[in-house]
Amino acid sequence: MTEKKKLIAPRLPRGFEDRLPADIGAINAMTAKIRKVYERYGFDPVETPLLEYTDTLGKFLPDTDRPNAGVFSLMDDDEQWMSLRYDLTAPLARHFAEHFNDLPKPYRSYRAGYVFRNEKPGPGRFRQFMQFDADTVGAAGPEADAEMCMMMADTMDALGLAGKYVVKVNNRKVLDGVLDAIGLGGEQMAAKRLAVLRAMDKADKFPIEEVKKLLEGGRRDESGDFTQGAGLTPAQSGAVAQFLTPFATVDRLIRFFGRVWTKPFTVRRYEELLMKAWGVSSVPAVLTEGLRELEQMRKLFRVAGYAPDRIRIDPSVVRGLEYYTGPVFEIELTFKVQNEKGQDVVFGSVGGGGRYDGLVSRFRSEPVPATGFSIGVSRLANALKLTGNLGAVEPTGPVVVLVMDKAETARYQAITSGLRQAGIRAEMFMGNTKNFGKQVAYADKRNAPAVIIEGSQEREQGIVQIKDMIVGKETAAAISDNAEYKAARPGQFECKGDIASIVAAISELPAVAQYLKDNQ
Amino acid sequence: MTEKKKLIAPRLPRGFEDRLPADIGAINAMTAKIRKVYERYGFDPVETPLLEYTDTLGKFLPDTDRPNAGVFSLMDDDEQWMSLRYDLTAPLARHFAEHFNDLPKPYRSYRAGYVFRNEKPGPGRFRQFMQFDADTVGAAGPEADAEMCMMMADTMDALGLAGKYVVKVNNRKVLDGVLDAIGLGGEQMAAKRLAVLRAMDKADKFPIEEVKKLLEGGRRDESGDFTQGAGLTPAQSGAVAQFLTPFATVDRLIRFFGRVWTKPFTVRRYEELLMKAWGVSSVPAVLTEGLRELEQMRKLFRVAGYAPDRIRIDPSVVRGLEYYTGPVFEIELTFKVQNEKGQDVVFGSVGGGGRYDGLVSRFRSEPVPATGFSIGVSRLANALKLTGNLGAVEPTGPVVVLVMDKAETARYQAITSGLRQAGIRAEMFMGNTKNFGKQVAYADKRNAPAVIIEGSQEREQGIVQIKDMIVGKETAAAISDNAEYKAARPGQFECKGDIASIVAAISELPAVAQYLKDNQ
Repeated sequence: MTEKKKLIAPRLPRGFEDRLPADIGAINAMTAKIRKVYERYGFDPVETPLLEYTDTLGKFLPDTDRPNAGVFSLMDDDEQWMSLRYDLTAPLARHFAEHFNDLPKPYRSYRAGYVFRNEKPGPGRFRQFMQFDADTVGAAGPEADAEMCMMMADTMDALGLAGKYVVKVNNRKVLDGVLDAIGLGGEQMAAKRLAVLRAMDKADKFPIEEVKKLLEGGRRDESGDFTQGAGLTPAQSGAVAQFLTPFATVDRLIRFFGRVWTKPFTVRRYEELLMKAWGVSSVPAVLTEGLRELEQMRKLFRVAGYAPDRIRIDPSVVRGLEYYTGPVFEIELTFKVQNEKGQDVVFGSVGGGGRYDGLVSRFRSEPVPATGFSIGVSRLANALKLTGNLGAVEPTGPVVVLVMDKAETARYQAITSGLRQAGIRAEMFMGNTKNFGKQVAYADKRNAPAVIIEGSQEREQGIVQIKDMIVGKETAAAISDNAEYKAARPGQFECKGDIASIVAAISELPAVAQYLKDNQ
Repeated sequence: MTEKKKLIAPRLPRGFEDRLPADIGAINAMTAKIRKVYERYGFDPVETPLLEYTDTLGKFLPDTDRPNAGVFSLMDDDEQWMSLRYDLTAPLARHFAEHFNDLPKPYRSYRAGYVFRNEKPGPGRFRQFMQFDADTVGAAGPEADAEMCMMMADTMDALGLAGKYVVKVNNRKVLDGVLDAIGLGGEQMAAKRLAVLRAMDKADKFPIEEVKKLLEGGRRDESGDFTQGAGLTPAQSGAVAQFLTPFATVDRLIRFFGRVWTKPFTVRRYEELLMKAWGVSSVPAVLTEGLRELEQMRKLFRVAGYAPDRIRIDPSVVRGLEYYTGPVFEIELTFKVQNEKGQDVVFGSVGGGGRYDGLVSRFRSEPVPATGFSIGVSRLANALKLTGNLGAVEPTGPVVVLVMDKAETARYQAITSGLRQAGIRAEMFMGNTKNFGKQVAYADKRNAPAVIIEGSQEREQGIVQIKDMIVGKETAAAISDNAEYKAARPGQFECKGDIASIVAAISELPAVAQYLKDNQ
């Protein structure tokens, strides 16, 4: 008696997934459209490896309160730590700094690829996912930020989402000014400000009382995981909540912003509005600077023909990443979807970005301004699926040459080769050939347009039988009687057995003709 | 005095590299051609994640004698080990086993993606590299192996390498039979046989005395790294060397095989030749089985029109991976290149594969036959570069709208947007605009077809200046005198300043017209 073999369970770690043909085809078509827009804007591709030294990547993730700080890391032979990249921006900063002398300045690049987050996975939240980024490094002015926003808008249009999105723009300097005004200014408050911004960024996900927990002592989610809070006093968190809550004083101001911002405005007018709301006689200088940059960007949007229904200033945009230093922006899809509770909610963000003037300076002593944005490819694909713009369809399968007689394999192989030489997807059945029905079922499962049948009888007559699987399926659906179905042999017809005749007959089937047209 | 900031060195771990635009474009074009062949053969894409559980991947690498067994591994939160995939075959076996009930059988798929080897990097040897695989799982017969070889040949043809490659085919069962005959048969010798095969596989890289070290006690390379040997006695290693060394008895037999194999032959005739060479009265059964499979494959090649100059049986092919159980094959590029010592050598292998009937059985109790092959994408790209088939060219750059006056940014942005709306790659210069020369130098570095110049003088006249950068460069090369060059303003012409006129003039430049044609 032989020992029973211990089997390994075939499984993936949580938060990882396989991708299937329809999905791969749809995502490829989608990224090709995005690429075309980025190239038209003058961006060229670059690609960095998936593993880098941990210190070159740095740690700028929103979830630094979790163990491992959100990254997958391992030690190299020489005891240096390496990590799987968690975004495409940190590697770009390293690439630019490493090749500083050779690269054109400004350096304009785009990148698509997988990134990894060692975080708790959930529905639609993976530990490996694809991002598609574009960045301009070495450009200091808000025109570079404005261009990013316009490119995001054009990308959504190219994907068929015209009228279904808005690019929202804000400025970290404005947010910093607001926090300064409520007593969170100064260098020693930097970490606290960041924690507050991250909590504020959750305002579209959680009710305000949950956000307040994140602003104060911390929050425990349904699964029991605890997220450390920003450590504000109740008075401070109340002020921030006012800024976030509809109908609160500050929020009314924000909504007022949203309205007037679409009209000509002056920075001075905004400052006056803010001073009145806060009951103060001056606003922080950083806030004025942020407002000026937003004003310049707004002007560029309008002159290039981007109306507020496509790109608008929105002071509620935060973006969670630590490295942003100026304008921040976000693409929001505005159509409604049902959440898991059956409620109508706005689809929400599919990407965003901002200015990160400090990121390259980690490697070089001179300041290097930079701006860019990132699209979440899977989330965008999911949105396109909902709007019917994804075009995810099973690929047209191969013509399957059935093996009716094992001794004639060479003949079936020759038919298959002849079809392929004519550019037709084709294969000889490779599985267990004993059961004719299983061969046809295989062809059906592969979405085959036709099968070719040559048994001994056909061979004697010098013919083959061609079964049009698509007509066959349609006809079969209309015939309820089993005997009638067998007699009718729906979609089946004879053809002369020489390879040229078979190729000609197969080429005329509508699905094959379409495939040949699409793949010239 | 502020503390001096400690800078991080921008660098990549050894064996990792960034990829630049020309390379990315060339590889994309190359993989698109490969994909087209695979799809015509009836294979559909599938994609697996880069990280998997270590136990599902298993360890089948040739270099198991090195620390970490060649893979990058890390521990998950739940203390299970995960590894970066080291090939695309092990994840396919897991995918097939995991989705066994849903997948068509046979299951025919292709996959392109990065794999990782935690090995010593060297020239042209990376720790992250791309493979392009195709596999048929659930097909037991040699017709599935034969199809792989034909697809490899067709792929080489599609890449423009007709006449420059040969697909060499052997069978592990034949090799096992040979090793059996020289006293290395039986289950208890399995590990030793594998070590011997791996050493034999190095015969095209090392001189025979170095291979003998690998067959016996072990070998230390120039850098001092030690590779454990197979542990053969000198007599046994001498017998294997005989099999490998030109002019030795066994090798003459192999070369004889190579000649007669292209003609009709019988398995019995081969067995007689072997018995004579070894002075024995019977050959191991496994050898006979291997020979029979090769005979069937040969017949399929010939009937499908693949002559021995494209696919041939070659008993010297080994393939180092542990999991092969039957036919093995290799694409060899036959053209000569110079090695680092300036000697002419054959370019060699760019891919290969074989039958691995045991790999899925790690997950399931029933046997699941499978066969497939893998192309080394970077190595193949390198070969195509050498033969002039890669088409790696710098992308056509964007038209650059120069910023002559910071206050007019909105106007330059409007020109840029107008060009983009006409499908033309265009950008406004985003860097430091003080130095006109630097703006033109930037455009030159970006491979820009033209720059657009509108200073205050042009604005007053309602015109812009267009500088054709390509004509400019050609003319400049013909003018040696600096004053003459400045007066001639090579390639520069005036155009009316409205956006429609600018778009029309730019569209007529040959490089732009070509870009528009290529990107319709």
